[in-house]
Amino acid sequence: MERFSGERLNVTYRIRAGSEAEATARARDICYEQTIELPEDLPIPEAIRAQVVGRIEDLRPIGPTAFEVVISYAVEVVGTDLTQLLNVVFGNVSLKPGIRVEALEFPDGFLRLFRGPRFGRTGIRERLDVWDRPLLCTALKPMGLSPQEMAELAYEMARAGVDLIKDDHGIADPPFCPFRERVPRCIEAVERANRETGRRSIYMPNVTAPADEVLERAEWARRMGAGGLLLSPGLTGLDTLRALAEEDAVALPLMAHPAFLGSFLVDPESGIAPGVLLGQLMRLAGADATIFPNYGGRFAFSREACRAITEATARPMGSFRPIFPVPAGGMSLDRIPEMVATYGTEAIFLIGGALLRERHRLAAVVRDLHRAMVEAMRGPGGQ
Amino acid sequence: MERFSGERLNVTYRIRAGSEAEATARARDICYEQTIELPEDLPIPEAIRAQVVGRIEDLRPIGPTAFEVVISYAVEVVGTDLTQLLNVVFGNVSLKPGIRVEALEFPDGFLRLFRGPRFGRTGIRERLDVWDRPLLCTALKPMGLSPQEMAELAYEMARAGVDLIKDDHGIADPPFCPFRERVPRCIEAVERANRETGRRSIYMPNVTAPADEVLERAEWARRMGAGGLLLSPGLTGLDTLRALAEEDAVALPLMAHPAFLGSFLVDPESGIAPGVLLGQLMRLAGADATIFPNYGGRFAFSREACRAITEATARPMGSFRPIFPVPAGGMSLDRIPEMVATYGTEAIFLIGGALLRERHRLAAVVRDLHRAMVEAMRGPGGQ
Repeated sequence: MERFSGERLNVTYRIRAGSEAEATARARDICYEQTIELPEDLPIPEAIRAQVVGRIEDLRPIGPTAFEVVISYAVEVVGTDLTQLLNVVFGNVSLKPGIRVEALEFPDGFLRLFRGPRFGRTGIRERLDVWDRPLLCTALKPMGLSPQEMAELAYEMARAGVDLIKDDHGIADPPFCPFRERVPRCIEAVERANRETGRRSIYMPNVTAPADEVLERAEWARRMGAGGLLLSPGLTGLDTLRALAEEDAVALPLMAHPAFLGSFLVDPESGIAPGVLLGQLMRLAGADATIFPNYGGRFAFSREACRAITEATARPMGSFRPIFPVPAGGMSLDRIPEMVATYGTEAIFLIGGALLRERHRLAAVVRDLHRAMVEAMRGPGGQ
Repeated sequence: MERFSGERLNVTYRIRAGSEAEATARARDICYEQTIELPEDLPIPEAIRAQVVGRIEDLRPIGPTAFEVVISYAVEVVGTDLTQLLNVVFGNVSLKPGIRVEALEFPDGFLRLFRGPRFGRTGIRERLDVWDRPLLCTALKPMGLSPQEMAELAYEMARAGVDLIKDDHGIADPPFCPFRERVPRCIEAVERANRETGRRSIYMPNVTAPADEVLERAEWARRMGAGGLLLSPGLTGLDTLRALAEEDAVALPLMAHPAFLGSFLVDPESGIAPGVLLGQLMRLAGADATIFPNYGGRFAFSREACRAITEATARPMGSFRPIFPVPAGGMSLDRIPEMVATYGTEAIFLIGGALLRERHRLAAVVRDLHRAMVEAMRGPGGQ
């Protein structure tokens, strides 16, 4: 076979193993399983063994029964698209317990195949024209509201000064709140509030939909005047996010929701590390903002996981723009300084139920949140 | 809000909990988390609480720290498509450890929204005209072969009598084996072998691809003369399988591969039970055959998991055709009677590396496998 370019993707795996010999055997198994899928002892052409099979670059113990191993794959094996990337990184070995993807290191040539986030942090701030604090986001809920009621709530949120107003991720196109009725109403409501406040809040409808309808809904929402879009790539496939991000007829800020991805994330010994899945991969696919469960909320995410995601949203990565981390849940006025200390000021804080609880005095609550955020930004935790 | 129809989807969850009180609290949390996503104490309209929030139908202990709970959701909440179904069943709670989807019970009205498997077991048998034994499938590998080498191997496999010859799931469109060069060559090779043997073996190319290319590749492969298609819905999104199954311009038997779905499957306390994910959901999406790791092979699937998937492929389910279970790995001549005892005769046995190892005497090995399968079918384990 022809010679490969030599460019390689590095994947760091955490492997459960009781000894270095066992760890090495498991690492070799990954090298074969993720590429040629044949037992090591089967005779194959030498060029394939040398170029196609994954290669162990590093292996070291990180605990009594855990090893960290770096395996590299030729970019020719990784291919040119996200589905094949996911397959080489974790396709078959996802079925083997005790293997977790801890880090990805892309060669520049691979990154250049992707458009990446179209807006990123700066693009979203430009749209909103808010520069002096973290951004505030809320979700329109509960499911069960009519389009008219959703629009009323959107109006109140925008009127109070919430920057980004998104559909609850559970509301796609239910019979009691159809997408094509809800979206124009919410857009109109937010625009009306903007005219009154002079702000530029945006409404982000949920375009999670059947495979053949996502782009259509997104383009339609854009034509109607939506200011951004929400998608759950765990439900649609990660590459649908990439297709959405690359489509010039859409060209709206994209916020990714982690629904259905939890099984990759909840076991510290298996799956994919949060920083990789919700940070690097969402950014690679073109998300401008990535939602994840805030630590100390109703999901069991650690502060370290939240920090790792945040770090991945801004780490140097080809020519990709930094994107917003969007911690969700467990946020209240008195936690703002802590949130800013954890996430920095380049974050979007997603507050749902806690704002709804204060609906009768929303303007005052949001004003206090804004003020606390501005102060935290100026303070020692800020920038 | 208007009154709902009363049709409901039942989901059985396994919940980790130390007491009935804790189990009940976790079950109530699921009812809210998967629908209105608000804390239970927040005032919401009574109609929403009564109709939209999930409902606990049953709850019982199944172990010292495990409970089984049945929660029902209104079909209006579940919606009309697979993305929303997955979201309601497991979207947010996937992020909470110790919750596993154990069973789904669809109302008939929901099932009628889907086309389901176009071929199923009978449709595939008709194509192949093989009725007296389980079917035999192999994968073309290793990755690294050229299109010409893939075609040679496909020819040898078809010539020896392998019924279904699929791409290795890792081979999509690599530079050293491009889709549009490989597919026509393999089709030609299998057709040539068929002319010589009088059999009707089929070649199934892998159409796992970027979101906007799957259908295009599938239609093209069909026009070229492919006999079926392979897709990894974990990589593309499950709904892409549905879109493929419903497309009349494709209309080929579809085989689903479990790549990247392992994180849902490997933890017995979290995720989605194999019978649900690889059985019910693949069938709902329209797979005609579903691949899964055979017990006793190189993946850690239990015999019970394999049996549960097999049972789900044929269980009454609206007007859906039964589909083929495709256990993969760990199969050899002497295990055929055991395989037939486990899976029955309505199965496709996927043998990859073990056949490649016998490439120098393939015809004899496949003939022996056929014979063992026919005998097992006639024997006490058969039908």
